[in-house]
Amino acid sequence: MIAASADVRLALDLCGIFVFALSGGLVGVRARLDLFGVVVLAWVSGLGGGIIRDVFLGDLPPDGISNGWYVITILVAGLVVFAFHGLFVDLSRHRPQLRLRRIAQSVKYLDAVGVATFAVAGSLKAISLGAPPLAAVFVGGITAVGGGMIRDVLVGQVPEVLRRELYALPALLGSSVVVIASELGHLSFPVIWAALLLVLGIRVAAIAFDLHAPVPITPSRGEAS
Amino acid sequence: MIAASADVRLALDLCGIFVFALSGGLVGVRARLDLFGVVVLAWVSGLGGGIIRDVFLGDLPPDGISNGWYVITILVAGLVVFAFHGLFVDLSRHRPQLRLRRIAQSVKYLDAVGVATFAVAGSLKAISLGAPPLAAVFVGGITAVGGGMIRDVLVGQVPEVLRRELYALPALLGSSVVVIASELGHLSFPVIWAALLLVLGIRVAAIAFDLHAPVPITPSRGEAS
Amino acid sequence: MIAASADVRLALDLCGIFVFALSGGLVGVRARLDLFGVVVLAWVSGLGGGIIRDVFLGDLPPDGISNGWYVITILVAGLVVFAFHGLFVDLSRHRPQLRLRRIAQSVKYLDAVGVATFAVAGSLKAISLGAPPLAAVFVGGITAVGGGMIRDVLVGQVPEVLRRELYALPALLGSSVVVIASELGHLSFPVIWAALLLVLGIRVAAIAFDLHAPVPITPSRGEAS
Repeated sequence: MIAASADVRLALDLCGIFVFALSGGLVGVRARLDLFGVVVLAWVSGLGGGIIRDVFLGDLPPDGISNGWYVITILVAGLVVFAFHGLFVDLSRHRPQLRLRRIAQSVKYLDAVGVATFAVAGSLKAISLGAPPLAAVFVGGITAVGGGMIRDVLVGQVPEVLRRELYALPALLGSSVVVIASELGHLSFPVIWAALLLVLGIRVAAIAFDLHAPVPITPSRGEAS
Repeated sequence: MIAASADVRLALDLCGIFVFALSGGLVGVRARLDLFGVVVLAWVSGLGGGIIRDVFLGDLPPDGISNGWYVITILVAGLVVFAFHGLFVDLSRHRPQLRLRRIAQSVKYLDAVGVATFAVAGSLKAISLGAPPLAAVFVGGITAVGGGMIRDVLVGQVPEVLRRELYALPALLGSSVVVIASELGHLSFPVIWAALLLVLGIRVAAIAFDLHAPVPITPSRGEAS
Repeated sequence: MIAASADVRLALDLCGIFVFALSGGLVGVRARLDLFGVVVLAWVSGLGGGIIRDVFLGDLPPDGISNGWYVITILVAGLVVFAFHGLFVDLSRHRPQLRLRRIAQSVKYLDAVGVATFAVAGSLKAISLGAPPLAAVFVGGITAVGGGMIRDVLVGQVPEVLRRELYALPALLGSSVVVIASELGHLSFPVIWAALLLVLGIRVAAIAFDLHAPVPITPSRGEAS
């Protein structure tokens, strides 16, 4: 099972790295970064979560700097960003605001896929390295949100995970499903797929319907600033 | 002694985690984050310093993600924040500026307690893990300021530790007292209490009397921006 | 060779720490931080990259908090910043904009030296600790850019490494030269000097001639904000 989940993990990792690198690259394009800035931001976004995971699990040096597949995935994503970015330009040459909104939406949906795959892959790796269950759940959650947090901080934005819309919770739910199944000795492909779809479903619903948790009563934006 | 200090450490840790989680939650409320954002910011603020400490000491996975007491403390603090936050609202429904000032002040005093407890607890843990004296001093200081730094960066503020008022220095003083006492073989409860009160006293005085180190001659704010 | 490179490494490290601490201190002066804020920012800038390097390599506690030479270097740099800063003031008392530009330029050139020394020193340390070649290259690059990234984020700026001008690429080139030479069994002083000068030359040229990678087509600054 662990051996099998190792292959599953690599597949999930590469998928998550790819989509987070895409989202990071698009955020870089939006932030008017140059070519290398975009690639650096793609690298940080795609590998940041996994690097934090490996540091927390003591699996050093982190895969994010030692695994060639990861690095190739980032470079491919970087190239794709430029194609994507071209599309955005073609699609709305005369409507920059629409283009910006479209980039922002794409980033959110790409993140949703990355959060789902990293939450599952992160908790699977923590389990395979013998981390205690509670730690495995949090490692999954941190793997899922870490890259996006670093990406947003680097471009001077308050991280999405702290702003509107359910974000950290589905990640923790997904990794909890994996960890509980593992504790019960029922960690199987269907469970992994269920966890993936659970996280993805909640995230996509939160974006599509703009679901978010209640905001505490606070002074108006004007007063707060 | 080490065994005893382990208990002391857990007590100090939980106290520091609680107050930093409160301060993080209040900062989140002020930054208009939603419920989960507030809890995530409380988590980062309460556990960030200890997680950096454990990473630096190679004590992995960090207590912050594997110790159930820590997690429970964060959740309790999150609930308390909402009560607190309610009080602020009741106390100054018609005076939002006063409310914001009151939140800011509360955050500073809560931080003072957290800085004191984490500086001592951090250096105690470093000593118990056999870190060299210099490293133990810095680990104490970093444990004390780390969570608040991450919290402030996440909401887009320049960290308090870099702004007015003595902040890092008392933390380093407190951990130095603990480390020196340990080197001299006189690490005892009175010493630990003395270190705690030293840090707390300096911080509270710095806040109450707005003490701060000299600011170098620089262009006026207008020119700097 | 490894033994020799250990001495070289310490020299390179101390040089890089010194210049990054200077640049961090100057950024702190520009950001109107008080004395301790300036020293904290100098500390973070000078030691941040090396601390990330040591965490990634599992060499804990990091040299940045356990090596006395490093700490002394930071303190000396802090004092020098105040002399420097005084010079800036004297040189352009009546022209604050000129002073600010001069500080900004100095920071860039100091960074160039730091990036070169840290890229080489970082990859040398990774090699000496037996990291795989790819990891050694990235460790060198991250050591070189890490401190400056943290510094910029702490004062609320988008890190230089993400903005105009070639920055991360020369660092990766320099560490690649060191790693390839090591793989070929030809790691020697001339190679180390060549790598240093390669990185330094590209950085200085990029600053002097304002070279930078192409910026993707994006909405105008007005629309982006």
